[in-house]
Amino acid sequence: MISKNEVKYIQSLYHKKNREAEGLFIAEGPKIVEELLESSFEVIKIFATEDWQPPAAMQVMLQTVTTDELQKISVLQAANQVLALVRQPKPGTFPPLKGRLSLALDNIQDPGNLGTIIRIADWFGVNTILAGEQTVELYNPKVIQATMGSFVRVTVHYGELRQMVQDAVVPVYGAMLQGQNVFETGNIAEGLLVIGNESKGISPELANLVTHPVTIPRYGGAESLNAAVATGIILSHVV
Amino acid sequence: MISKNEVKYIQSLYHKKNREAEGLFIAEGPKIVEELLESSFEVIKIFATEDWQPPAAMQVMLQTVTTDELQKISVLQAANQVLALVRQPKPGTFPPLKGRLSLALDNIQDPGNLGTIIRIADWFGVNTILAGEQTVELYNPKVIQATMGSFVRVTVHYGELRQMVQDAVVPVYGAMLQGQNVFETGNIAEGLLVIGNESKGISPELANLVTHPVTIPRYGGAESLNAAVATGIILSHVV
Repeated sequence: MISKNEVKYIQSLYHKKNREAEGLFIAEGPKIVEELLESSFEVIKIFATEDWQPPAAMQVMLQTVTTDELQKISVLQAANQVLALVRQPKPGTFPPLKGRLSLALDNIQDPGNLGTIIRIADWFGVNTILAGEQTVELYNPKVIQATMGSFVRVTVHYGELRQMVQDAVVPVYGAMLQGQNVFETGNIAEGLLVIGNESKGISPELANLVTHPVTIPRYGGAESLNAAVATGIILSHVV
Repeated sequence: MISKNEVKYIQSLYHKKNREAEGLFIAEGPKIVEELLESSFEVIKIFATEDWQPPAAMQVMLQTVTTDELQKISVLQAANQVLALVRQPKPGTFPPLKGRLSLALDNIQDPGNLGTIIRIADWFGVNTILAGEQTVELYNPKVIQATMGSFVRVTVHYGELRQMVQDAVVPVYGAMLQGQNVFETGNIAEGLLVIGNESKGISPELANLVTHPVTIPRYGGAESLNAAVATGIILSHVV
């Protein structure tokens, strides 16, 4: 059972302004919610249908709803058993960049792309992502869903990207049209890899800060690769 | 100027049933339409706003419309200058697999994923894709748009996938959880690379036909990679 006011409240969190005002976000589906429950994120409340199997030790308020009720508060085309209301953690201090490989995202606009990049970073053991304020918001439900839960292991630190990259005390790599063949770059033990916007690439003011441009060789006719695909390919050659 | 009947007709082509009955599909935006006009595809008619610059030698009937009219027939959130009505080529004979690397798609459901895989194949010079009947249709507008025009250079041949893979006279590679490290596979000059469904991977009946399982090593916590990202990573290591 869910009240009209609860439905309205959850739906209000589809909008960034309300997510920021409330300091909350929503996440859906058994896999993501179970990852959240095992993480340090604070889950406030869970709405679930009877077929969802909660983890044994769950300390969170659980409200049982029908499939139709769950669909009303879900952003998914087909609601999937469970929706969690989660507190946005306070932004942390600037993450350490020394001795590791991190990503810097320059204006990634598509929520699916950001989520997929976070999932790729997690696969390759990259735990830190710097993002400019123009990159889509981490707590956008489409981003959260596209991460498949990887956002619990990867920190996305938002800020003034040019300043953050300028202050980085590590080599700055960038995916660019003219650069070293990434198949021959070898392992990168320490660095910041800048990923550009989906259609415009890396902005000129950031491109100036790239000390090591790298390129994915092209063998056919396509003019470009999707930003997330390019991130996956580069990471697979340098980790 | 566009009539109500024309609007209805174009909108009817959003549905697969009508696309198949009419043998047509739609493609949008200057880049894709210009690639089509330079290709062997038969463009029947073009609807464009006044700001679109048609190629000088264009022999296609061009109908000028307002931005509002274009938006009515567009599948894009923001219509982009031009929409083409294009004839679906007749399915060709079974494509040659000897002496080259091709892809086989086992039940790729998401149109964006199929389009992105076609774009990746094009980038790496892979011209042939075999697809089972359960893979999403090539002429779905979301597939066409996600290819960014690469579908003019990559042939997708639909059929009974198990039979096609069984009849293939080349080594069959498959992206699987247990297999050779793809970072160490080296170049593949000839073969068929099987890509599995987004959530279920390669189906058991196809997995039995894989002679060379390959794996993308994992360094972090993510359980899986997006199918298109995995395709891009594997191709980047074997072409």
